[in-house]
Amino acid sequence: MLVKSMEWLQDRLRLLDQTRLPKETRFLDCSDYRQVVEAIRELRVRGAPAIGAAGAFATVLAAQELGRQAPSDFRARLEQAASEIASARPTAVNLRWAVRRVLRASEGAKTPAESVALLLAEAHLIQQEDEAANHAMARFGADLLPQGATVLTHCNTGALATAGHGTALGVIRTAWEQGKLKQVLATETRPLLQGARLTTWELQQEGIPVTLMADSAAGFRVSQGGVSCVILGADRIAANGDTANKIGTHMLAVMAKEYRVPFYVAAPTSTVDLDTPTGADIPIEERKPEEVRGFAGVQTAPDGVPVYNPAFDVTPARLITAIITERGVVRPPYTESLKLLFREQQAERPGARHG
Amino acid sequence: MLVKSMEWLQDRLRLLDQTRLPKETRFLDCSDYRQVVEAIRELRVRGAPAIGAAGAFATVLAAQELGRQAPSDFRARLEQAASEIASARPTAVNLRWAVRRVLRASEGAKTPAESVALLLAEAHLIQQEDEAANHAMARFGADLLPQGATVLTHCNTGALATAGHGTALGVIRTAWEQGKLKQVLATETRPLLQGARLTTWELQQEGIPVTLMADSAAGFRVSQGGVSCVILGADRIAANGDTANKIGTHMLAVMAKEYRVPFYVAAPTSTVDLDTPTGADIPIEERKPEEVRGFAGVQTAPDGVPVYNPAFDVTPARLITAIITERGVVRPPYTESLKLLFREQQAERPGARHG
Repeated sequence: MLVKSMEWLQDRLRLLDQTRLPKETRFLDCSDYRQVVEAIRELRVRGAPAIGAAGAFATVLAAQELGRQAPSDFRARLEQAASEIASARPTAVNLRWAVRRVLRASEGAKTPAESVALLLAEAHLIQQEDEAANHAMARFGADLLPQGATVLTHCNTGALATAGHGTALGVIRTAWEQGKLKQVLATETRPLLQGARLTTWELQQEGIPVTLMADSAAGFRVSQGGVSCVILGADRIAANGDTANKIGTHMLAVMAKEYRVPFYVAAPTSTVDLDTPTGADIPIEERKPEEVRGFAGVQTAPDGVPVYNPAFDVTPARLITAIITERGVVRPPYTESLKLLFREQQAERPGARHG
Repeated sequence: MLVKSMEWLQDRLRLLDQTRLPKETRFLDCSDYRQVVEAIRELRVRGAPAIGAAGAFATVLAAQELGRQAPSDFRARLEQAASEIASARPTAVNLRWAVRRVLRASEGAKTPAESVALLLAEAHLIQQEDEAANHAMARFGADLLPQGATVLTHCNTGALATAGHGTALGVIRTAWEQGKLKQVLATETRPLLQGARLTTWELQQEGIPVTLMADSAAGFRVSQGGVSCVILGADRIAANGDTANKIGTHMLAVMAKEYRVPFYVAAPTSTVDLDTPTGADIPIEERKPEEVRGFAGVQTAPDGVPVYNPAFDVTPARLITAIITERGVVRPPYTESLKLLFREQQAERPGARHG
């Protein structure tokens, strides 16, 4: 059974509330775009491609609402709502990219109703393309794995983090279907435990062998040998290949380099942002101290102790063996290889600024 | 206020229950050595030097009990109990070392009562020497820090982990007293959160500025610059300098090497085991999966997911800038420099096998 992170139902967006997993399978029906913004902020829906798709559908919800009010400045107000949606979280570029893309697709609309229809069609297209991209990159990625692979992954990059199948976890799924995979080693991914809660759960659903470990134990595990590769996702890939991803990625990349384990990033081209020159230009979201002072409402650290809680880190391009996209596998030097990915799809360039 | 991990009261050992901190300050009075063994296993008392001292006092409790029963094979049964105490946890060498040391000190005893007296005197001596060693190594260590130092530490190596003052945290305390320290960066230390629960609490008690972060964020923090050094403790140092310490140490050492940050281990010579040739010979304790499947008693991962949960890892000597002991600072090549530490104290050599 492949879980779905979201589904459009007639006039509303149904989100699987990922903060409740694996204990509870609870859905959240959003008919107001502000609910989606809130759900993105609270990580009820998370994963760069998934929040991209959710942002696209949220823009449809905003247009529906404005359509009912029928203001004279419909387009301006739609763009205002869209900008609010696009800035729900700062690091993943997919959110901004998807919102811009649906807006652009609805530019020629003559009525609010037509606008809603065009926005919705484009949001569905983004969702379908993301799933197709997942399957394409999964095949490219699986080709990189040796027979009997033991693969270490971080955070959750599965069906839950995307429109379906997954990025790094999509590669793992496809390698499993091909009979190439022996086992998955999954980090728990502090502070919000997406690895412990979501990745192990997704893999268990499909009977793929998985072993859970603390983030620090995963680093040590790399040093012990027998890990075929590290493979994980991305929230934004800069033009030079520097990659923002879940906090902990950088440390795993350094361990992989030290012990000569290949380190792969799997991400759709919608995660590549050629307008961001290097990792230093990627805004890193810092989240609230309570996430580190405790978990699930249980406080463990003393009251008021100051906390450093970046949600992401930036891994320098020099530590990345290859980036797996739906258009193929790119290798260093990334400044050249990433640009080539977009040469024949100039109009689609995810990072391109429109208006 | 300096907290105390343990105190001998007439005929029993009072332990501060560290699993309850920082929420509750609860003491555990042990009059049976088996209670101490259980407390060591459950990490109610933890930290290599502290479990050494606790093991020494537990041996006194065993002798008291046997003294009351007055069996003909008193000594044999005492040694049996001592061996049970010494194996409560496998990685830290201090436990085995302290138990052997008190046994040796009581070898000449003619009666059980005399045995108890000699054991107790030696246990007190171990405790006093450990505290004195902490202060000595703290001075050596503080000399290594630059003015205005930002120091990153892992796990808890403070008064709670020792007989007082601390190893790595002792260095930090002394540097603070000397006005050299700007701030401490503390890892939370999954899975049992000794950093979040104990280190931040100890530092707060003394007004030393501390910032808490997830283990993975600490690794990233090293890459961002401005960290003067990483300093942490040890559970066993092999003859070649390979060091077993809390899981996560290895990853921090690799990050420190990658970003040219000095990486210091602070430990008394009772942690050095010349009878263990290399890190590969150090037994690594694996603890129960529940520690990783949940957080602070709240289950987070799906039922039954397999877990890899080593309590310690081994950091290769090549990644360690220097080892700070109460007899001075030793540097590579450790095979030579560690041996020199013991040259004039042959009788005291911690790892030496007796009987």
